[in-house]
Formats: sequence, structure tokens, C-alpha cells
Amino acid sequence: MLKHFASDNYSGICPQAMEYMMQANGMDGIAYGDDEWTARAADRFRELFETDCEVFFVFNGTAANSLSLASMCQSYHSVVCHELAHIETDECGAPEFASNGAKLLLGTGEGGKLTPESIEHLVTKRSDIHYPKPKVLSVTQPTEVGTVYTLDELAAIREVADRYDLKIHMDGARFANAVASLGVSPADVTWRSGVDVLCFSGTKNGMAMGEAILFFDRKLAEDFDYRCKQAGQLASKMRFISAPWLGLLESGAWLSNAQHANDCAQYLSQQLQQVEGVKHIFETQANAVFVEVPEPVMIAMRDKGWRFYTFIGAGGMRLVSSWNTSKAEVDEFVADLKSLL
Amino acid sequence: MLKHFASDNYSGICPQAMEYMMQANGMDGIAYGDDEWTARAADRFRELFETDCEVFFVFNGTAANSLSLASMCQSYHSVVCHELAHIETDECGAPEFASNGAKLLLGTGEGGKLTPESIEHLVTKRSDIHYPKPKVLSVTQPTEVGTVYTLDELAAIREVADRYDLKIHMDGARFANAVASLGVSPADVTWRSGVDVLCFSGTKNGMAMGEAILFFDRKLAEDFDYRCKQAGQLASKMRFISAPWLGLLESGAWLSNAQHANDCAQYLSQQLQQVEGVKHIFETQANAVFVEVPEPVMIAMRDKGWRFYTFIGAGGMRLVSSWNTSKAEVDEFVADLKSLL
Amino acid sequence: MLKHFASDNYSGICPQAMEYMMQANGMDGIAYGDDEWTARAADRFRELFETDCEVFFVFNGTAANSLSLASMCQSYHSVVCHELAHIETDECGAPEFASNGAKLLLGTGEGGKLTPESIEHLVTKRSDIHYPKPKVLSVTQPTEVGTVYTLDELAAIREVADRYDLKIHMDGARFANAVASLGVSPADVTWRSGVDVLCFSGTKNGMAMGEAILFFDRKLAEDFDYRCKQAGQLASKMRFISAPWLGLLESGAWLSNAQHANDCAQYLSQQLQQVEGVKHIFETQANAVFVEVPEPVMIAMRDKGWRFYTFIGAGGMRLVSSWNTSKAEVDEFVADLKSLL
Amino acid sequence: MLKHFASDNYSGICPQAMEYMMQANGMDGIAYGDDEWTARAADRFRELFETDCEVFFVFNGTAANSLSLASMCQSYHSVVCHELAHIETDECGAPEFASNGAKLLLGTGEGGKLTPESIEHLVTKRSDIHYPKPKVLSVTQPTEVGTVYTLDELAAIREVADRYDLKIHMDGARFANAVASLGVSPADVTWRSGVDVLCFSGTKNGMAMGEAILFFDRKLAEDFDYRCKQAGQLASKMRFISAPWLGLLESGAWLSNAQHANDCAQYLSQQLQQVEGVKHIFETQANAVFVEVPEPVMIAMRDKGWRFYTFIGAGGMRLVSSWNTSKAEVDEFVADLKSLL
Repeated sequence: MLKHFASDNYSGICPQAMEYMMQANGMDGIAYGDDEWTARAADRFRELFETDCEVFFVFNGTAANSLSLASMCQSYHSVVCHELAHIETDECGAPEFASNGAKLLLGTGEGGKLTPESIEHLVTKRSDIHYPKPKVLSVTQPTEVGTVYTLDELAAIREVADRYDLKIHMDGARFANAVASLGVSPADVTWRSGVDVLCFSGTKNGMAMGEAILFFDRKLAEDFDYRCKQAGQLASKMRFISAPWLGLLESGAWLSNAQHANDCAQYLSQQLQQVEGVKHIFETQANAVFVEVPEPVMIAMRDKGWRFYTFIGAGGMRLVSSWNTSKAEVDEFVADLKSLL
Repeated sequence: MLKHFASDNYSGICPQAMEYMMQANGMDGIAYGDDEWTARAADRFRELFETDCEVFFVFNGTAANSLSLASMCQSYHSVVCHELAHIETDECGAPEFASNGAKLLLGTGEGGKLTPESIEHLVTKRSDIHYPKPKVLSVTQPTEVGTVYTLDELAAIREVADRYDLKIHMDGARFANAVASLGVSPADVTWRSGVDVLCFSGTKNGMAMGEAILFFDRKLAEDFDYRCKQAGQLASKMRFISAPWLGLLESGAWLSNAQHANDCAQYLSQQLQQVEGVKHIFETQANAVFVEVPEPVMIAMRDKGWRFYTFIGAGGMRLVSSWNTSKAEVDEFVADLKSLL
Repeated sequence: MLKHFASDNYSGICPQAMEYMMQANGMDGIAYGDDEWTARAADRFRELFETDCEVFFVFNGTAANSLSLASMCQSYHSVVCHELAHIETDECGAPEFASNGAKLLLGTGEGGKLTPESIEHLVTKRSDIHYPKPKVLSVTQPTEVGTVYTLDELAAIREVADRYDLKIHMDGARFANAVASLGVSPADVTWRSGVDVLCFSGTKNGMAMGEAILFFDRKLAEDFDYRCKQAGQLASKMRFISAPWLGLLESGAWLSNAQHANDCAQYLSQQLQQVEGVKHIFETQANAVFVEVPEPVMIAMRDKGWRFYTFIGAGGMRLVSSWNTSKAEVDEFVADLKSLL
Repeated sequence: MLKHFASDNYSGICPQAMEYMMQANGMDGIAYGDDEWTARAADRFRELFETDCEVFFVFNGTAANSLSLASMCQSYHSVVCHELAHIETDECGAPEFASNGAKLLLGTGEGGKLTPESIEHLVTKRSDIHYPKPKVLSVTQPTEVGTVYTLDELAAIREVADRYDLKIHMDGARFANAVASLGVSPADVTWRSGVDVLCFSGTKNGMAMGEAILFFDRKLAEDFDYRCKQAGQLASKMRFISAPWLGLLESGAWLSNAQHANDCAQYLSQQLQQVEGVKHIFETQANAVFVEVPEPVMIAMRDKGWRFYTFIGAGGMRLVSSWNTSKAEVDEFVADLKSLL
């Protein structure tokens, strides 16, 4: 057994996704997404989001983010995002590649959240052709540090985006965890908050692989199927992505998986608050806990077999829970940590 | 049930691939390919190909071909391929996109096979900087029309490639079918024949998705992991691609699946040879049969529920068999066709 | 002295362009095109073309064509052009590079001219996402083989373009020669014929370097200044491109230079018609003459010091005249040729 | 007359460049750089730099920098540069476009100069494939803020570059001013200091347009002529770039122009040091003076007709001198400023 709070992408396939994948394997299916599983999954997304959005499926989050961003700008444009955004720190230049050169403009804000002021500063500081023109605003929901934008915060961001004619992209690598955390509808936190395109991750939500891209602004989706094909993101046996998605959506596992992961993170966070020598760095609002512990303790925890990522310097531990995290694992982790402090 | 000889990508996941996928789902795994399944699968490829090649896994064939081609040339170079090659006719410009502009130079030859003369003609007709410099030769094995290059033909191609300093890329979308057809070792038909990079498809061989890229010339693989990441081709839960591959390799299903598909195609081909009014267009050497039948008969077959692709004008039917094609399906198809002729 | 009919880009700077360049050098000027010369030249283009078009200046024809094409399509789209079009045969993949991968679809037609039938065939032969979607039609006026589209031919092309929602790009590397040949207004042969974007070459018309790009459809010009900047096509000392252009436009040299070159080509063509053993390949409608002469004669002409390009196999000589070609040169060339036949 | 210290690209063509341009215009010339002027200019560069480097000519600095950087890395690599570097702040994403997505990693250092520590920090902070791999180090000589790297500083940078296998690119937009400032040979400050590629600007040195790219590491220049062609940077009438370069090199104006501009900047700097209320921001080591004056004074200076750029917030004035700046202009500027303070 792997002892870890490393990432929700260490987890396997949840039963509901697996069940539908097996069903989809029961017979042959038309290739390239012209099958029933794909049509049904797309329709289910439209129901869940209460709008007639365009739905596409791609293999992973890097592709979902970079291709959807590329559909919103040209190579000589720029994308505003937080300096901690995944598209800046962990995609190896994928947005730049997919867009053939668009720059990311790095904003700031507490808790990994872009502030309207920071956005405005980036957008207004230059207006000459020697600097790429801002066209897109990318928000990560929840953020890379496990915090969640409130609806009010999204409204304030939309206001500044409207003022400067920016499209809004939402990186929803853990979108379900944000919905579970906020207790609002998917529609409220996306298109009703002015989001134009959402990348909704299935991989971290309990699938083997596969992301949904939802275009609430359908004009942005023009010829997006060609873009996916050209970029190597059109699955020939598409139903093995769409059927598991359907499993998550029809069973409600998309939300219950996220709720479970969030609950584990809350439980872990609470346990850690009672451990002397452990200091929270960010508020735990979704499925990640960020704490500072002494460097030797981190090393000792690894010696005990625990896997986790570090963050922002030596003192920071990132602890991510998943759909299959158990409270026993949390207890074991906390006990091990306590024994070392 | 879908009645079809449409494509081997209509088929589902074969038992051997599924079994290993289930095993890989038994516990959590390290992300991004640093897991044991991926290491084992790569080692198995090295054993099978009897050489210490570099092995990468990507999601689909479009990506495998376009990224590996991009690793062999720059944007101002060109790639020689047959005018019927998949990279020219069915990738929506993916090689051009991945390479940021490399051109494909289209050669000719009977049965979908490039001739050395055709290659030489393309490579020598221009030598000025107003035309992209040829750097790569791409062969499809088996070809798009179901024929297979012999070892002698590959040797002749290698000779011309060497003369003009061209790297050789092999599009192995149905590579296993070629190996089964030739009855030679994978090594013989690739690096021993001078192939530098092979794209070996798992999708058409019985997996849900996933291709292996084998660099026999390891220098070409420098930083290829970065390239895959940037292009959105690094699976976070990589083991769900590598474990099924391991299932195919360890069980031998990679070859038996292909042999079965080839046998079905041979059987179908033989049955069709006895049907008056059916004319073979290409020789059946792998898992595809190309025949001409009258247009109204094709329509009538579709009315009976059969799915298949047409090829090269109205008269051509492309009939592809797969790992799960049954002789009963062949018989039913032939009977239906006979009843219409 | 260089004895040649090699190309109009062997010629130097004509007096009218030089005079304005000297004037522009009389004092310092604001950089990056915010100077008066640039504003005046752009206004003059609008007057000449009788429409409020957007005007940009870039360094050369490769850039003009490839950047303007890129503004009309995305990487997963395609551009229809004649198989002899310069953008296909002599730009080293520049359109593919500038557009990040758009494919050129090669049409046919007598005398280097695309026929409506050929366009329609290319546009309708595929409609699936595995092949790039046609979005632009590029016509070269005059063509690479020195012929000129009539207004009727352009109207027929526009009709098919409208039917399939294609934008029209005109490669006007020798645009002035076409205007001189047809005896119509620049407006007639461009936007009144449905052309959306024209690349009008100054280099071949008597300048040191510099091309104008005219967007008759102003929406296509959105942020095109950023595109030029990013692609390395924004001259800091822009006035040294725009002032010579102004010289050509204000003096009328843009047309008289072209007329002179056309006259020389006509004269050369007529002289050659009287030489036994010389066969015209294409009709001489602008400033180029294409003739077949025996291979040994071509070699002998080169031995006498003459420079020219060959075309379409060994038998073809391409003879291009320019603003500074003299009738004496024509006479000398013809005399030398006669002496060898 | 334009009253300004705006930029050296406001100046026209110096007499030595103009004279050679006129000579080159005396007769026709072979196109695309196969002329004698180009050959002679390239040879002169080799003499001046005392090494057999590869020499290419392109139209402007954006192209020179971005294409040469692209020749040193792939799309998934990164380029280390100072946060104030022109390639970061003023090229509208040209390096990202030319390289199809390479990221710039922004280092720091006093006076616009990268420190070895800053480089090392950027290069070592990540080593995973989720972040682009550093391959190139770009130094601007002189820097954007008018300071000049000493030979010792370059040696220290080379040491860290060697340790991490980074190629060194030198942005020499005002290279001649650095040579004049340091009083060393061009070879000393480039390849003897470990520079692999130099972009040497002719535009700011007294030409209408045109930059030289010198590859001291000839392997990096492989097929660079194709790259230039594809990117729209191959001038057909190349001699109108190379002949003026030859004029600068043969006359020595390349250095005397720079020396004059530097002298004017020194004189201006000294005069301003005696003006109360004016504070130098950076040391004047080449041809630019950076001073802080009260915002109302800047406005009043503009009202008097002076043009200049501001820098780093409201208080900063950037004053650039050129080959044709006169001491009278300096005196007038200083007098006007004094009258306002």
C-alpha cells in the first residue's frame, strides 16, 4: 500500500466510473465520439449546468487548459492568471505552445486568489503593441493552495473582466471540490458568475483519465473539434472517457467523491490544528491542507514511508485527499507526525 | 450489436488489457509515470525489441506520430511520406502543428508503399532555401491500404534514407498486424531495418487508449518527456495506459490479437474472392480488405445495418477486422453481400 | 554589369523611391510607424484604392503573405491555392509557420490560374474533422507564370468563395503589373472583385524592400499590428519603408514602373516569337516570359553571362523584366539567343 | 526638427551607410544574399571579430533575437534573462512565438545586469518535467538601463552557464556602444567571453534597418538560413542591408557613431548632475541617461516639444543619444530643464 497524501491523481478509478467503463466495453462503439455514451454524457453536463453549453472531452488537464485558452486568444495576446496558477507553474509551457506564444501575465492575491486590483494593474500597465494584449483571465477554482473563490469574489472579478473585455477561463482541476465546498450549483459558480469556459477534471474526480471542456459562450467553441483533433486530443475510442464521466454524473459520484475528499481534508486539518509545531499556511477549503512543519520532521515522515509534495520552500507540506482517502489514513498520518514532534 | 467492419478502433478493451487495468486499480500509484507498471511495461518493450530503446507512452496515434516527427525535424524541414499516409490525410494538420510548420512531401508507390525512386525524387528536386529541407522519412507499416512492406523493401528505403541523411519514422498504427503478417521479429522490422522511431499503437491492438513511442536512436529522445508534457500527452494516472500495455505484452495478446484480426481479414478476403461482382483493390496482407462493389450494393449493405468506410471514390469499401471480430460476422457480411449481388 | 532576366528583385531602387527615402532621411522621425511618412503613405493607399482600408507595412513578401493568411485562419484550417503558387513552392513553409500549422490545399488550372471547379473540388471533398477546414482562398495576381486573372475570372472565383464562406487573399508580389496589364483600377481588381486582403509588393516595384498589406475587410485587421510586432515585422525606422512607398504612389511610378516592365516583356516576347526553336510556354500578360529552348542553348546562354531562372523542367526559361530593364538588353539577349539557335 | 532624446531609432541613416547603399544601387545585384556586398560584409565581420563565425542578416532586432534564441532551444525549454530585458518587456512575445512556446525565466540584478546567483537560482529551483528546462542565457549588452557588463562579470556568468550547460545569447541592440564604453575588442566581449550568438544591431548604429546575427558556435547555425527564410527574414534585395553594414564596418563608423553617442550621453549626464532636483537612477555607461525629475517638470518639458520615454514609474526619464545627437541639443535640453526646476 502506498502511504500518501501526495495527490488525488495517485488514486485509481472509482467504482461508479469503472462500472460504466465496463458497460461501455460490452459492445463495439462508433469511434471519435459519435457514440451514444458521448452524446449522453454531454447531455448530462448540460442538465447539470442548466444551460445548452458545448461539451468536449480531452485526455488530460494540460490539454484542457491549454487548448481552451488558445481558443480565447491569439499568439500576440496574453492571459492573466495568478502567479501560483498551475498553467504558469506546472504545465511546462503548454499554454504558450498551444497558443503559439501567448504570454501569461502573473497577478497576485492572498491565498492564491487573484484580486480585481491585481488584474486591473496588469491589464492597464501597458497599452502599446510591444507588449501582448490581455484577452483572457484564468481563475483556478479551487486554487492551487486549496482555497475557494466565493461567488462575491467571482462577481468582482467578472466586473473587472467586463470592463477590459476579457474572457474568463476557469481551471477546474478540482472543480467538484469547489462546488462541494461552496454548496452552490455548478451553474452559479460558472456561467452565472460570468465564466466563459470551464475545464472540469474527471481524472482527479475518480476517473482513469479524461476531462470535460464546457463552453458556455458557444461562439468560442467554433471549430474546437478540429483544434482537439489537430492537437492529438481526439480519442478514437472516446466512449472510454465519456462513459466513466456518465457514471460519475448519473450516480452523483462526481459530487460525493469531492465531498468525501473535502471531509477528509477538513478532518486532517482539524487533527493537525491540535498538533503542536504544525502551522497552517492556507485555509483548508477544499481537499488540500498546507502546513509548515520542521524540515527534519518532513524527512522523518518520508522515512516512515509517507509521500507528499512540498510547497513554497522547505517548511511547507501539501497534503491532498481524494475520493478514496480513509479516515484511518488520516489518523495514521497524524499519529506518525505527533510521534515525531 | 453494432454490425461493422468499420475500424479496429470500434472494438473495446481486450480481456488481457482489462485484467491488468483492474490490477493497476487495486491500489494507488505514483503519478506521471513514476510507477512500477510503467517501468515494467517499458522494460518489456525493450525485451520484445531486443534493444535498450527509450520508451514513452502517449494517449493516441495522432500525438504519437506528430510529436515523434517533431522530435526529428524543425519547422523549416520536411517529412517525406506516401500521399496516402495517415499523417497526410487524416491528422488535420497535426504534424504541421506539432512541428510548428514542417511540410509533408508526398511520395507515391503501388499499394500505398513508398518507393525508393519516389523518395529520391522528392529529396533531390530542390536544394534551395525557399523549400523546406527533407529530414525525415515516414513509412506506415502496414500501410493505409492494408499492405505490408517486406524486409527487402525496408532495406531499399533505408539505403536511400542513408544516402540523403534522413531519419526514419514508422507509423505503426497497426504495427502488430504487420509483425504477424511478416512472421518476423519486431526488431527485424524496425531498428534492424534502420527505423529510428516507432509509434506502436495499443488502441487498435485491444486497449482503451494509449500508444508507445520507441526511440531506437536514443539521441532523438532527448527531453522528449518535456515535449510530451508540454503537448498535453503526459497522463497523470499513467499506469492506466502502461498496465494494459503490460497485459498485452506479457500475455502475448499484442501478437495473438493481431494474428486473429489478420486471419479474419484473410478469411473475409477469400470469401469475397468467390463472390461475383466483388473486385479486390489492394492485396490483403494485414487486417484490412479493400474491395470494389457497385454503389447501390454499398447503400443496400448500409441499409442492412452494416458500417464500413469507403475509400478512393464511390466504388471502394474498406473492411477492417479486429481482435474481437468473429468468423460468424464475416459469414453474415458475405451472405448479405451475396444476396445483393 | 549583370546581364540578366533573372528577377525583378535583382533591380535596385528607382529614382522616385530613392528621392523620398532621402527626404525622409533629412530629419529624425518618430519610430514604429507613428511618423508622418507612414500616415501619408497609408492615406495615399486609401485614395488609390478608393476605400477606407487598413494599411500595414512589413519587410518582405514572405511575411506579408504568411502573416495576412494567418490572420484569416487558425492552425486547423486550410488555405486553397494553385499548385504553382509562390506560398506553396517558394516560401519554405512560411504560411504553415506563421499560422502554426495550417495546410495548403493545392488546386489546379491552366496558366497557373485556379479554376472555380478546382476550388470547389478541394473544398467539398472532405468535411470531417480529420482534415483541416478550408477557410481562405489565395490567388496570385499576376500568377507565378506571368498570366493575369481577368475581372470575370475573379468574379467566378468570388462566387465559389462566397458559397463556401472562404476569405480571399491576393498575393500581389507583382500587383502593379497586373493593374497595368488589365488597364483597370486597383479597386476593381481587388475589393470590388471580392478580395479581402491584398499583399502589394514594393520590393519588386522599385523599392529596396517593403510591402504593403491592405485589409479591405477591416475586421480581419484586428490586432494585426500586434501580429506584425510579434513576428519581427515592425520596422523601428518605419519611414524608410513608407516614404519610398509614398514616392512610388505620389509620382505614379508604381504604375509606370510596372507598365515599363510589362512593355519590355511584351517586346521580348514578340522578338522571341520570331526566333526559330523558341516556344512560348505561357502567355505573356505581365512582366514575365516563359519559353522553351534546347538545354544546350540555355547552357550556352549562361556561358555568355546571362542569368535567368529555369522553370518546370530542363526546357523552360523564365525571363523577367523590371522597372529598369532596357530594350537594348532585350535586343542583346535575343541576338545572343539567335546566334545559338 | 524633432526635439528629442527618445531613442536612437528616431535617427536616420548615417552618411557612411548611405554612401554604400547608393553604391549598391549603382547596378543590379543577385538576390537573396548571393551578391558581393553580402559576402564582403560577412567577411568584414569575421575580420572584426577575429574568428570564422557564421553571419546572417535580418531586418530588425525582434527577429534577430527571437530567431537566434529559437535556434538554441526547443519549445519546452526556457531562456534565462533579466526581468528588464527587452526580449521580456518589449517584443510582444516574439521569442515565445519564434520558438513555439519557450518560456522566459526572469532573473534579477542591480543595474539591469543578471547576477550569477540569480541565474543559478532560476536554473536550480526546478528539475521536473512540469517546468521548461533552461537551455539558454540571454544577456543584453549594454543593458536596457544603459549599463555595461564588464569582462569580469561576463566571465562569472559564463562560469555558471558552463556549469548548467546553458548557451549564451547576447542581445546587442546597442552592442557598438558597449564596445566603445569598455574599450575592448569585439572578440573580447563576445566569443572570448563565452558568447555563442550575438545579435548586432545596425539600425540603432546608423542604418535604415538591418541586423547581423553572428554565430560563434557554428553548429548552432545549422540550417539557420532556412529558419530566416521561413520566418520572413530573408531580404530579396539583401544588398541594401549588407552594403550599409559594409559602409559602417569599412569606415569605422560602427564604432565612431557609438563613441559619439556615448560621449553625448556622458556630457548630458554631467550637465544633469549639476542640475538641482535631477537624480540619476542608473549609471551612464553607454548612450542612455536615466534620471528622476518631478512629474510636472516632465509634463512641462513635453509641452516645450521634447520627446523622451519614461521608465519605471512616473519619476523616470530615459534619455537616449544617437550618432547624430549634437551637443547643442544637449545644451538646449538642459537649459529647458533648468528653467523649469
